[in-house]
Amino acid sequence: MKKKTPKVADLPLAGDQCPSKDPSLATDFRSRLPEVVGQMVATCNARTCFEHIGAEPLPSRSQAIAILKTCRELIFPGYFGTQGIDWVNLEYRIGLELSGLFNCLAEEIANAIRHECTRHGHICQHCEEAGQEKAFLFLERLPHLRALLASDVQAAYQGDPAAAGFDEIIFSYPGLHAITIYRIAHELYRLEVPILPRIMTEHAHSITGIDIHPGARIGKRFFIDHGTGVVIGQTAMIGKGVKLYQGVTLGALAFKRDEAGELERHTKRHPTLEDDVTVYAGSTILGGETVIGARSVIGGNIWLTHSVPPDTKVVLNPPELVYKKS
Amino acid sequence: MKKKTPKVADLPLAGDQCPSKDPSLATDFRSRLPEVVGQMVATCNARTCFEHIGAEPLPSRSQAIAILKTCRELIFPGYFGTQGIDWVNLEYRIGLELSGLFNCLAEEIANAIRHECTRHGHICQHCEEAGQEKAFLFLERLPHLRALLASDVQAAYQGDPAAAGFDEIIFSYPGLHAITIYRIAHELYRLEVPILPRIMTEHAHSITGIDIHPGARIGKRFFIDHGTGVVIGQTAMIGKGVKLYQGVTLGALAFKRDEAGELERHTKRHPTLEDDVTVYAGSTILGGETVIGARSVIGGNIWLTHSVPPDTKVVLNPPELVYKKS
Amino acid sequence: MKKKTPKVADLPLAGDQCPSKDPSLATDFRSRLPEVVGQMVATCNARTCFEHIGAEPLPSRSQAIAILKTCRELIFPGYFGTQGIDWVNLEYRIGLELSGLFNCLAEEIANAIRHECTRHGHICQHCEEAGQEKAFLFLERLPHLRALLASDVQAAYQGDPAAAGFDEIIFSYPGLHAITIYRIAHELYRLEVPILPRIMTEHAHSITGIDIHPGARIGKRFFIDHGTGVVIGQTAMIGKGVKLYQGVTLGALAFKRDEAGELERHTKRHPTLEDDVTVYAGSTILGGETVIGARSVIGGNIWLTHSVPPDTKVVLNPPELVYKKS
Repeated sequence: MKKKTPKVADLPLAGDQCPSKDPSLATDFRSRLPEVVGQMVATCNARTCFEHIGAEPLPSRSQAIAILKTCRELIFPGYFGTQGIDWVNLEYRIGLELSGLFNCLAEEIANAIRHECTRHGHICQHCEEAGQEKAFLFLERLPHLRALLASDVQAAYQGDPAAAGFDEIIFSYPGLHAITIYRIAHELYRLEVPILPRIMTEHAHSITGIDIHPGARIGKRFFIDHGTGVVIGQTAMIGKGVKLYQGVTLGALAFKRDEAGELERHTKRHPTLEDDVTVYAGSTILGGETVIGARSVIGGNIWLTHSVPPDTKVVLNPPELVYKKS
Repeated sequence: MKKKTPKVADLPLAGDQCPSKDPSLATDFRSRLPEVVGQMVATCNARTCFEHIGAEPLPSRSQAIAILKTCRELIFPGYFGTQGIDWVNLEYRIGLELSGLFNCLAEEIANAIRHECTRHGHICQHCEEAGQEKAFLFLERLPHLRALLASDVQAAYQGDPAAAGFDEIIFSYPGLHAITIYRIAHELYRLEVPILPRIMTEHAHSITGIDIHPGARIGKRFFIDHGTGVVIGQTAMIGKGVKLYQGVTLGALAFKRDEAGELERHTKRHPTLEDDVTVYAGSTILGGETVIGARSVIGGNIWLTHSVPPDTKVVLNPPELVYKKS
Repeated sequence: MKKKTPKVADLPLAGDQCPSKDPSLATDFRSRLPEVVGQMVATCNARTCFEHIGAEPLPSRSQAIAILKTCRELIFPGYFGTQGIDWVNLEYRIGLELSGLFNCLAEEIANAIRHECTRHGHICQHCEEAGQEKAFLFLERLPHLRALLASDVQAAYQGDPAAAGFDEIIFSYPGLHAITIYRIAHELYRLEVPILPRIMTEHAHSITGIDIHPGARIGKRFFIDHGTGVVIGQTAMIGKGVKLYQGVTLGALAFKRDEAGELERHTKRHPTLEDDVTVYAGSTILGGETVIGARSVIGGNIWLTHSVPPDTKVVLNPPELVYKKS
């Protein structure tokens, strides 16, 4: 094919961080890059491209993670932040962190609301103000979150014989980490902050393998052991003192569609677990009308799509195993 | 034991980033470090050590992640990169990113090929050139990848009642993230680029819990919900419009060994799922000759090692549960 | 409500990294932040707060990760560290890395011991010294760890037909990564280093989905394929040549409580797997007295709470499936 004259676009640029060892080799293919650029630009408008060009900024994932980090430090003072916090500098530290958090959070909430407004064609007049207000309402809930999470730490200690102490739980248990992030995200969800809560819980999902939708409602003294593979759906309701093991799903049974064939998105689709229920590893409980009664124990590997009365132990009638001499 | 005179190697060095508070204390043990260094050097040659000394550089994991990041920004313009992309600067942005990506990718592909050549004792003459060519062929596929992934986003929206909108899916769904990385890695796998595609999918595995081998073949409109624990093997074939839930394995049944007792590494070992199949949470489908017919639905927690005809719903005959009053 | 005069605390501070676009808007809510600060300080002393104020520094998670990184580079020289290691500079590199590692590790171990001492009200006199000693004893075990891990790499190659070569396994297999971190953490656990080993294995859990307690005892030639969802408890004992697939749990059956109703924390609660046992995906084996005999094979999705003799294949009597034409 005809060799093109190199264009300005082919000259080395600030964005080119890995120059190949022998630039002369590159000329042939590099000179054809504008063809690809042209196609990538042309298809941005197509139905087969999701783009976010010229739109209001989305909430920043890295800011969301920074917000979670600061909240965790405020809730468990001295564990995660800069070392050297003591009773003398405590107020100054908390004051500085909290005022920084307020600004960050107000801005990210405003971004989230503004983004939502413009996506739906609304005129956005109060985004900044709403960001400030919701950020403040969130901060006011921090003492409540601290007490809730303290109950979760105690539940972990009481539920796990391998726990060497509270510090180990706070410092290294993924279940507590996921619950902490969920509880923060749930407060923002209750304040009707869009998109940001889900970014937070998906961050928790990524680092712990525990997927709790920010819309779920979960009582105090909640403990998840090991946790990888746990899924808790948007409309699940969980009482106090509940204990889940790895691989437990609280999910939807089947999706209803409305007359137009579209999914119904606002019905209760996930189960209810009353107080002090325990669910062992790998069990799946499905359906918005499924209620597991208080103090019931669901054994491992069970698939449940109906309710269970209180104080009931449900175990699998052990399936027949086949033993072969090999 | 006899105390040794401190050697030059024991003096503080640039690599020593954590000096202990009282260096005098350290002398005793520090002075014995050369013994350990000697053993570590001596055993580098042993059969009990895998080393990569004096070898050609391996592809860089951090560059692989940077490549994925840039591809994602190019495929979904405006979502993940620097804020402030609009229709005026779009071409410049895409041009800059794409030319940077070309250089990086060409270099990493060349590294991967050169590494493979030298490991197998081949003389490596065309690595640089092959790197350029394969990088260009990959970039030419980007518009196709964009269209494929747009179909995956739509499938997620149609499959999940909790999805608040397309932006939330693109921005925070781990299933889409894993599929995006798989689709990029699969293109490189088709171009016979060694090692790099697997580094990419294992990165996805690490952040999403979804393990898709880059060799698997997967049609458009693919949706994985929640996803943690999903495993899709190297020779799996998946049609269009397939939907998988968390914990689904498409795996190998048993490994055949050749006459020398070595594993056969190039046979079809993983199942085929025809168009519009759904597999619910925790099910395992095994074997290279297993075919799940079009539009079939496999319930949760099922272990399947044989084929299923089209339009079939397979559910577990509910195992007997035992209820005990506690 | 009455508007407060802005205080010094409301002026922009170094910690305030996201100034909102229009600072005047913020005044109202910002001026009320001291109320929240006051509550957060006041509740630090409460029973509903876990705090770590004025305490000895905890081991640093980022230092723990840096220690793991250096150990991995020393064990597999040339794979993960700076490029360009060859037989000439090998000794210098290893010497530099090892002496840096010694200082870091001694300091973090000292921190861990000191923290433990003060938490239990002991007077801590020998923390620094113990840190040095245990760090040295650990380093002396590195050649042994290298040989152990080389046997694990070979087991992975022999167990996985998709493995393209040893380099791919070392460079990208999450199972090997988790085992590497576990073996390092286990050495520190044997040296009775508190908290640090668990931080390490929970880091592995986060990036691989594989949760191995540092207290577990695991023989050579250990292979975990795919791995997401694997849980291996504190008192599990695993022989040589064992192979596990994703989602396998080696867990506790039920927790015994002592006369005071407290959990018994020091009994053997997790199973024993003798040499050359294989456990397929999704199976759960529970109980401290459960022993799986040598060379036995446990099929997928099995729930076992009792022992199995050697040379036995245990499979599920396939549950009845229901096929419906849809």
